[in-house]
Amino acid sequence: MNISSRNILIVYNLLFAGILVPQSSVSADKRINSKPNFIIILADDMGYGDLGTFGHPTIKTPVLDRMAEEGQKWTNFYVSAPVCTPSRAGLLTGRLAIRTGMCSKKRRVLFPDSNGGLPENEITIASTLKTSGYSTACIGKWHLGHLPQFMPNAHGFDYFFGMPYSNDEDLINGKDYESTLVNPKVEYFNVPLMRNSEIIERPANQTTITKRYTEEAVNFIKHNKDKPFFLYLAHSMPHLPLFRSKEFENKSLRGIYGDVIEELDWSVGEILTALKKSGLDDKTFVVFTSDNGPWTIFQDQGGSAGLLSGGKGGTYEGGMREPAIFRWPGTLKPGIIMDMATTLDLLPTFFKLANVDLPKDRIYDGYDISSVMLGTGKDPRDIVFFYRDEEVFAVRKGEFKAHFMTQHEYGDEKVTVHDPPLLFNLNIDPSEKHNIADKHPEIIREIKEILKQHQATLIPVENQLDK
Amino acid sequence: MNISSRNILIVYNLLFAGILVPQSSVSADKRINSKPNFIIILADDMGYGDLGTFGHPTIKTPVLDRMAEEGQKWTNFYVSAPVCTPSRAGLLTGRLAIRTGMCSKKRRVLFPDSNGGLPENEITIASTLKTSGYSTACIGKWHLGHLPQFMPNAHGFDYFFGMPYSNDEDLINGKDYESTLVNPKVEYFNVPLMRNSEIIERPANQTTITKRYTEEAVNFIKHNKDKPFFLYLAHSMPHLPLFRSKEFENKSLRGIYGDVIEELDWSVGEILTALKKSGLDDKTFVVFTSDNGPWTIFQDQGGSAGLLSGGKGGTYEGGMREPAIFRWPGTLKPGIIMDMATTLDLLPTFFKLANVDLPKDRIYDGYDISSVMLGTGKDPRDIVFFYRDEEVFAVRKGEFKAHFMTQHEYGDEKVTVHDPPLLFNLNIDPSEKHNIADKHPEIIREIKEILKQHQATLIPVENQLDK
Repeated sequence: MNISSRNILIVYNLLFAGILVPQSSVSADKRINSKPNFIIILADDMGYGDLGTFGHPTIKTPVLDRMAEEGQKWTNFYVSAPVCTPSRAGLLTGRLAIRTGMCSKKRRVLFPDSNGGLPENEITIASTLKTSGYSTACIGKWHLGHLPQFMPNAHGFDYFFGMPYSNDEDLINGKDYESTLVNPKVEYFNVPLMRNSEIIERPANQTTITKRYTEEAVNFIKHNKDKPFFLYLAHSMPHLPLFRSKEFENKSLRGIYGDVIEELDWSVGEILTALKKSGLDDKTFVVFTSDNGPWTIFQDQGGSAGLLSGGKGGTYEGGMREPAIFRWPGTLKPGIIMDMATTLDLLPTFFKLANVDLPKDRIYDGYDISSVMLGTGKDPRDIVFFYRDEEVFAVRKGEFKAHFMTQHEYGDEKVTVHDPPLLFNLNIDPSEKHNIADKHPEIIREIKEILKQHQATLIPVENQLDK
Repeated sequence: MNISSRNILIVYNLLFAGILVPQSSVSADKRINSKPNFIIILADDMGYGDLGTFGHPTIKTPVLDRMAEEGQKWTNFYVSAPVCTPSRAGLLTGRLAIRTGMCSKKRRVLFPDSNGGLPENEITIASTLKTSGYSTACIGKWHLGHLPQFMPNAHGFDYFFGMPYSNDEDLINGKDYESTLVNPKVEYFNVPLMRNSEIIERPANQTTITKRYTEEAVNFIKHNKDKPFFLYLAHSMPHLPLFRSKEFENKSLRGIYGDVIEELDWSVGEILTALKKSGLDDKTFVVFTSDNGPWTIFQDQGGSAGLLSGGKGGTYEGGMREPAIFRWPGTLKPGIIMDMATTLDLLPTFFKLANVDLPKDRIYDGYDISSVMLGTGKDPRDIVFFYRDEEVFAVRKGEFKAHFMTQHEYGDEKVTVHDPPLLFNLNIDPSEKHNIADKHPEIIREIKEILKQHQATLIPVENQLDK
């Protein structure tokens, strides 16, 4: 990309932030393999501070630490919502949940009694890649609708092995939710384990769930040596109730939460080993991240957002900034990437790398960030919207973040409206401690205008979570 | 070390914790070079969360990150006091400041009008190593007394280049301390720069101070290729007022604090390059750490304790747990070390590695931790005392920490006495958020007994800071 086209791109982004994805943002790069494999490994409720390489003092994650050294450690990587369902909908569609009906103030996520799900006309990473010749598998937690028309097989996945929703749902009668979550037994949670549309175990034996997801993922890799594939490995852990296999019991200094993270680290090691053994190391782009921040209300059994404020459910950084590690030996230059990116960007980026056109009939909120990964160009993303359910609570523009509203992450406390909004410089003050609103009225004006423009692009859709 | 002697050692430690250093804790290890070089690089007021490898999202520290990868990253490493003077006294003597008179509730550290200093009869790392044939240099901030009898040359250092005390002292008349600190000019702080006993510049030009300390350190290394040496490089930064050289102005996303840390990272790179060029890489044991936690009252210009609570001046973890990186290629097995250690342990460890006997005429608070570094034995340290000035505010025993008293880090608020003490499990809850005192009365009893035993070893000495 030459300088002038880069400048045009910046202007373009400023004007149309969040409305369209610039198709021309990356010049063809010789280093990109044609049809690389893609693997997304998603932890559930893991915090920004829970890996060794992100500063945790007592959780051992040697595999992920090495993956970060050999690959790219992204330190300003976000999800698009602070709770499961809308975050996952955003990741797989490249579109904010507000556009797909996958967020709700009333229920926040899908429950076993929900009748909604990711609409059939939504395009997922899997559905497009499948059409383009990829083998596709979803292994792990789905949580985008458990009626047949919403399930992974209906959304582009050739294969599904996992749970249709969260591991804390289907609590058996007579049990108190919160105390059961921290003192769990497998039989308390009647969550089904499914293979495609068939329930193969109920309740799912969660003790071995990380191990079995891993085995399934390794098998999928082995069987797809000669064909491009997309593997979406969405672990059920470390979402409470916490379970881990025998080998990881009391292994970690950090207690059961640490055991669970250390088993996930082991799991990543198995995936990377399978890639190596199958000769797919340099043909496969692996992304490791989490769906939202740590569930801090569960104290020791929740994770840590490290130096960030807040956690799961809220719009402070801890709720939506996640550890992210990218790995693609021979293609990605190792290093720490401080540019902004989000899980919304994976779809446009994968499509670009796989030489698939981005559909032009809908609005995308993701950007093709391959230029940042490959070191060939500037970050197309300069803005992040912090949605709490159906509302934008905060907006990040460059280094500044304005909070228009705040609310306790997971309680019933009221919304606090901030006028003027709280303003933080996230580069200088990542912990959001020092409000500088009075110093930058011009930034607040600019962010308000960005929000207005964004909101003008929203079209009312049917709410899927309240159904 | 065989199992039975190890058990004896554990019992020994339980009984005499803090009283004597077990001389027999490490068997002779073939890998130890005879008379290795030692370098301590000490940052000033840097926080636990301020390096990339300890999780900071916007400060770039590629040299220290690589040093941690190639060496050992210690995640439970402490200083012996949460402010400069007692912390440094502890580091250089292996003895708590309460034993050397180097702590005071009234003044906390030494000031330009102080008449006290590290007593002449105290033995430092430098004085013993010098007697044993080492070249010794102190480059940077001293802060252990600026009268001739207390200066580095009087305490075993062949060479001194640096400031006798903190870079914020000697503020010129008529300036408000706090506002000047965050909007500093070189000429506001009349701190002298000295070479041995001579003042060579006043006020010291702090803009180039990190660079000049580095040059002096590199020269010292080059001139000591053929002789064992001990280099104590105690940077004045990132203690406020913050200064950095032209090349680092506005370099960091993290603002001036980030610029300063990134210049320190560069400085470490220069030291490591000098070692390599001089062929001393595998003959030199380098330790990088900080003297106490971040000065958080200065907001953006103070550092971050990462996931830890508190900061400089206080006895929550953020005040006294520091990032620590050990490097000794070919001798230390790279990895993350989660065992407990403190700067008090450097003296006995260096003495062991240099084959020098530990004096038997005084009580040491440090342990020889070479067995942990070398992977040959168990950690001899199981206890850390958290002194705030002359009093023990908290005690860590294994994974548990009991706070008997707490007080705001740096304000005038009153001491809060806790009875029962607050109790935290630091392995599981490093952020000290969840008090579990009611669950472990037996641990509290044990810690109280440990404290009592420790206090019985204290002998009143003259207070040096109130002089």
